[in-house]
Amino acid sequence: MAKNITTREQDYNQWYLDVIKAAQLADYSPVRGCMVIRPTGYALWEAIQGDLDARFKATGHTNAYFPLLIPVSFLQKEADHVDGFAMECAVVTHSGLEASEDGLKVKGELAEPLVVRPTSETVIGHMYSQWIQSYRDLPVLLNQWANVMRWELRTRLFLRTAEFLWQEGHTAHETAEEAQEETLKMLDVYAECVEEFLAVPVIKGQKTESEKFPGADTTYCIEALMQDGKALQAGTSHNLGQNFAKAFDIGFLGRDNQRHLCWTTSWGVSTRLIGALIMTHSDDEGLVLPPRMAPVVCAIVPIYRKEGEKEQVMEACRNMLVSLCGIKAVEQAESRLGNRDQLAVFFGEGHRQQVILDMRDTKPVEKHFYWEQRGVPFRLEVGPRDVAKNACVLKNRLSRDKEFLQQDELSGSWLENKIEAMQSELFQRAQTRTEEGTCFVDSYEELKKALAERSGFVRCWFNPDVDNEQKIKEETKGTVRCIPLDQPGGEGTCIYSGEPAKQQVIFAIAY
Amino acid sequence: MAKNITTREQDYNQWYLDVIKAAQLADYSPVRGCMVIRPTGYALWEAIQGDLDARFKATGHTNAYFPLLIPVSFLQKEADHVDGFAMECAVVTHSGLEASEDGLKVKGELAEPLVVRPTSETVIGHMYSQWIQSYRDLPVLLNQWANVMRWELRTRLFLRTAEFLWQEGHTAHETAEEAQEETLKMLDVYAECVEEFLAVPVIKGQKTESEKFPGADTTYCIEALMQDGKALQAGTSHNLGQNFAKAFDIGFLGRDNQRHLCWTTSWGVSTRLIGALIMTHSDDEGLVLPPRMAPVVCAIVPIYRKEGEKEQVMEACRNMLVSLCGIKAVEQAESRLGNRDQLAVFFGEGHRQQVILDMRDTKPVEKHFYWEQRGVPFRLEVGPRDVAKNACVLKNRLSRDKEFLQQDELSGSWLENKIEAMQSELFQRAQTRTEEGTCFVDSYEELKKALAERSGFVRCWFNPDVDNEQKIKEETKGTVRCIPLDQPGGEGTCIYSGEPAKQQVIFAIAY
Repeated sequence: MAKNITTREQDYNQWYLDVIKAAQLADYSPVRGCMVIRPTGYALWEAIQGDLDARFKATGHTNAYFPLLIPVSFLQKEADHVDGFAMECAVVTHSGLEASEDGLKVKGELAEPLVVRPTSETVIGHMYSQWIQSYRDLPVLLNQWANVMRWELRTRLFLRTAEFLWQEGHTAHETAEEAQEETLKMLDVYAECVEEFLAVPVIKGQKTESEKFPGADTTYCIEALMQDGKALQAGTSHNLGQNFAKAFDIGFLGRDNQRHLCWTTSWGVSTRLIGALIMTHSDDEGLVLPPRMAPVVCAIVPIYRKEGEKEQVMEACRNMLVSLCGIKAVEQAESRLGNRDQLAVFFGEGHRQQVILDMRDTKPVEKHFYWEQRGVPFRLEVGPRDVAKNACVLKNRLSRDKEFLQQDELSGSWLENKIEAMQSELFQRAQTRTEEGTCFVDSYEELKKALAERSGFVRCWFNPDVDNEQKIKEETKGTVRCIPLDQPGGEGTCIYSGEPAKQQVIFAIAY
Repeated sequence: MAKNITTREQDYNQWYLDVIKAAQLADYSPVRGCMVIRPTGYALWEAIQGDLDARFKATGHTNAYFPLLIPVSFLQKEADHVDGFAMECAVVTHSGLEASEDGLKVKGELAEPLVVRPTSETVIGHMYSQWIQSYRDLPVLLNQWANVMRWELRTRLFLRTAEFLWQEGHTAHETAEEAQEETLKMLDVYAECVEEFLAVPVIKGQKTESEKFPGADTTYCIEALMQDGKALQAGTSHNLGQNFAKAFDIGFLGRDNQRHLCWTTSWGVSTRLIGALIMTHSDDEGLVLPPRMAPVVCAIVPIYRKEGEKEQVMEACRNMLVSLCGIKAVEQAESRLGNRDQLAVFFGEGHRQQVILDMRDTKPVEKHFYWEQRGVPFRLEVGPRDVAKNACVLKNRLSRDKEFLQQDELSGSWLENKIEAMQSELFQRAQTRTEEGTCFVDSYEELKKALAERSGFVRCWFNPDVDNEQKIKEETKGTVRCIPLDQPGGEGTCIYSGEPAKQQVIFAIAY
């Protein structure tokens, strides 16, 4: 048992922070509520970025970049939007500092304060109004990778921080139908990335009026169930209707030679996904990573006691590297980093994943914890006796099983198969937990009991209503996570109002 | 001649802006001095990022992310640094806005103002002081891709904007020698990327005291000569000595069991490189891109007048796409974007460059300007008569020559060869211009004359001196761009002081 990690049973919140610390994923920074994403954590974000960016481009989107600072007057143009975001913005009021007797003082007060973007609908809307003239300019399908800020009171690494990294897609369309199609298409893209790449099962649904994005007609989301029974919103896709088109006059000359307003959408996921990843898969030993996304997919650990044993063990390790990654990749890595004690060799296509030969002069038990706590899916260990038998030991991070292998069994496709098997197992395990963590209730009493006793996803017939949802939240801490797209059809009785209800919703206590 | 582009001879500055506008690379934003990078421009940044990031990783660096906002007290810890940056920072003083009778007002004044990072040495230094304990933790080799802000008075798209995108490397080492080695290694990495990938020739050198980074012991740079004879600093690498280690107490327990301070470096390039690229290669017809980096390397343009000709021309175009990119890539593109009028197919390894079949319903002459002004290196045109002869026409963006080809000459390696040939030619052309734009002078009179008449790089023996450099700048507008690493050896006479000088420098008028 790792001494630096609290167990989930003891204290789930502390466990989460301990896992992050042990894997060196992130730290709090000296600026309140802002985090520092350390290399191990940032590599996860790079993996997610790579996967999502390819999916965005495959669906016809391109990237662009818009200003960090937004004039306050822009926020005010859309009434719901300003109510939703203006209260907790970082506000830039001055353009410099100057020396004074008491140290540095602000100087150069701005005529109009600027806010650090909490999201970019407004400034992008302004630019779209200039770029779009005719229906021939549509659709506009852009995405931005950026940092944003929302001054949160209670922060939690990755899940809720004042500054975070995200992507925000912003599209403009000729018709309402196209905007709706785009909104749902990007929801699917998110669900596919999160399920296939992060191995986190999600439920696709629509937000109720009280939970939707400020300024949207409709917000869709993917919701995932964490190990402690709480729900986590993993991504959102908004149909903005003509709200921002009206506010920023995003119009075009249509096929009928008349001027029309565009229909716009926006959609985003953030570094929060790393929190979802940690809380879905990790265990009391530390981080567990889905092998398809893991930046380091396998660590090879040489084990020897005497200097005389080192050479033959290292030779066997290098041969194993060659079997897994090919001689060309190994030689490239050797020429790059000849003098470092972790030889990192690219594995597979795309130069994204690595196999590492850990040559550090530290004890095997330290290496054991090092790779376990960083969630590396596979570890291959070789000692002098293994060398004699042409054998090695495979340790599986997920099952924590040992497997004795002949070295000549190793190959690139062998590792690919191992990756696929563990990826499926991980997803299946999370899927089963989500199913077991979901129940159906017929009455408000049952809902209260379910949320109090076991949390999880609680499904029921319900008529969304801002006031009723507020009352339920006060009584149970639960909120409607979504109206699932997948509906049984037919009609039931709303558990709160007793009136006929046409849809089921999912309640849960959320992060 | 393109009517929307002023010629270089008429007005070089207007030409630069016209090229950017015609290629839709960037726009000014509603926030003063901040730019919007449009998709065509952002694709150039993505190409540069991809190339540099691979070079950083190949030299053992990993990426991380640090906070956008920096406490004012951090800036103050290094005296030169605060003088260099504090005067023109965006300052966050409040944490929100609230409604009032006159609209939104700031609320939640912060106890200590925060600045939007102009660069991150201070906050990264603070984190390093916590992370580094022992010589075993060294070296730390991190890089950050980020946005930064410096409130510039005079802005110019890509070259000087209030907000810009960049990467900043930050490393910490055990010895002064290792820090110096790293500083020069990253200068080499920059020079290789800029020369090999952007085809922009550079001179590597050291900055004089008056031009170095605030807080550095030594600053190295790469300098490039633009078509108008002005110099552009394309990247800098700083040996920070122990200055930031002292200010932030970045120490470690050494091999001798004593506590020591680290030696740190930092190095950066920015979206300014896109400006360098434009001003080095482009012509009066618009943007010219180095074919190795061009996001779109070739456009295939079908030409037909009657609907009856369309089918056979389109079939020939698709066959050409298959010859260049392979059937698999074409089918993937078709399945992705079945309903769009520009079929973009990945070309070559790495899924980075594309060949586009332009099926838009616009006139050939419009397509001609469209691809010319976007700097696409090659264009293949096919009309009905070409189809009959199994022929096509290749248009070369750089030479603007036509070449008549048989369609069966086309293949992936044919295009690779074309790319390599144009890339060399482009670099050679810029190299020749740089050489022709460089002169050697023996006296201050000659320097004044050279800078007044023709600008360019002016090389001479000179003893760097803050006061003398200031006087020369006032009289000639010229500054010492660098003390080139490549020195003739021996000794000369300083053109300004008349004293013996051990080194030559390069003067120029700079962007």
